[in-house]
Amino acid sequence: MTRGRITVEPDDGLTTRGRRNRPLLIVNTGEGKGKTSAAMGMAMRAWAQGWAVGIYQFVKSASWRTGEYVALTRLGELDGDVTFERMGTGCTWMRSAHGGEVSAEEAAVAAWAHVRQGLAEERHRLWVLDEFTYPMAWGWVQTDEVVEALRSRPGTQHVVITGRRCPQPILDLADLVTEMTKVTHPFDKGQKGQAGIEW
Amino acid sequence: MTRGRITVEPDDGLTTRGRRNRPLLIVNTGEGKGKTSAAMGMAMRAWAQGWAVGIYQFVKSASWRTGEYVALTRLGELDGDVTFERMGTGCTWMRSAHGGEVSAEEAAVAAWAHVRQGLAEERHRLWVLDEFTYPMAWGWVQTDEVVEALRSRPGTQHVVITGRRCPQPILDLADLVTEMTKVTHPFDKGQKGQAGIEW
Repeated sequence: MTRGRITVEPDDGLTTRGRRNRPLLIVNTGEGKGKTSAAMGMAMRAWAQGWAVGIYQFVKSASWRTGEYVALTRLGELDGDVTFERMGTGCTWMRSAHGGEVSAEEAAVAAWAHVRQGLAEERHRLWVLDEFTYPMAWGWVQTDEVVEALRSRPGTQHVVITGRRCPQPILDLADLVTEMTKVTHPFDKGQKGQAGIEW
Repeated sequence: MTRGRITVEPDDGLTTRGRRNRPLLIVNTGEGKGKTSAAMGMAMRAWAQGWAVGIYQFVKSASWRTGEYVALTRLGELDGDVTFERMGTGCTWMRSAHGGEVSAEEAAVAAWAHVRQGLAEERHRLWVLDEFTYPMAWGWVQTDEVVEALRSRPGTQHVVITGRRCPQPILDLADLVTEMTKVTHPFDKGQKGQAGIEW
């Protein structure tokens, strides 16, 4: 990465500082690798800035102890404000809120309600909604509702959404969309994922 | 990310475990964002596995205090083994080795010699060679020499190379190449990079 250079001088009446502080919606999508790990790298940067960081994983289970979970919760314990919730069906608070087992769809709906309320309350400065495209793509969470909640979010809350099959209205709203494209992949050679690399 | 599924059963006589432990060469390239941040996310995962992690930035200056530098060196101080070197012209040990100012080309050549020796000595289990494509693309570091050093590296050393314009012989050698493609970028709207997001 090189420091940003402006390619077009904007005519929006904002100062550079005002523009810098504009809340961003960032989407990492596509069939390739790196969508989640790039979002986690951004969470690390945000932590280093002293920002309140919230990471919400919509598909991963709480029983799956990933490297990013270990590292980012450790950083948060050290210093600062890191919330890291894995909101799949194994999520403990969700189970107790529902009085027992929840389906994947119920978990996603409850997770989104939780995030939407947090956005309204300006809970974090950087949000990572990991694999949030799937509950939208599957019709479990209404995309229009997400667009509305993102559009009306108060303050300077940056939001990063990751996952394949991102609905078009989210792409249209985004300030930055990066598509990760697979060029060569070791799984094609029959290699399984490795701890330390893939999680 | 979802846990890997094998799409082809390999006929290489290796056990699954042997295949899992095969050293990987990973390239994050393309015009889009996320090349460095995805590599830093992987460094975080490797740290969480207790691996020796080495991050070498070929273009960034030591005077530039990025979020990933702060977070990963902090994790390394806590526990484990993290080396994070910014090997641009501002690099202190390089200046003293050269008895004064070094050019960008001299810095890149010295940095590569340092990395090559470390690979031969199995210094780390995960290497991030950030923006290493540029010294190769500019002809400062010979691509053939890099291919040879990578091909003959001993043990299980995973290497991640980031940057645009990756030379074809490196892509050919890689086990995993991801191209980050810019779809929408706020710089196009005249927005400058933000701390916490871009560094």
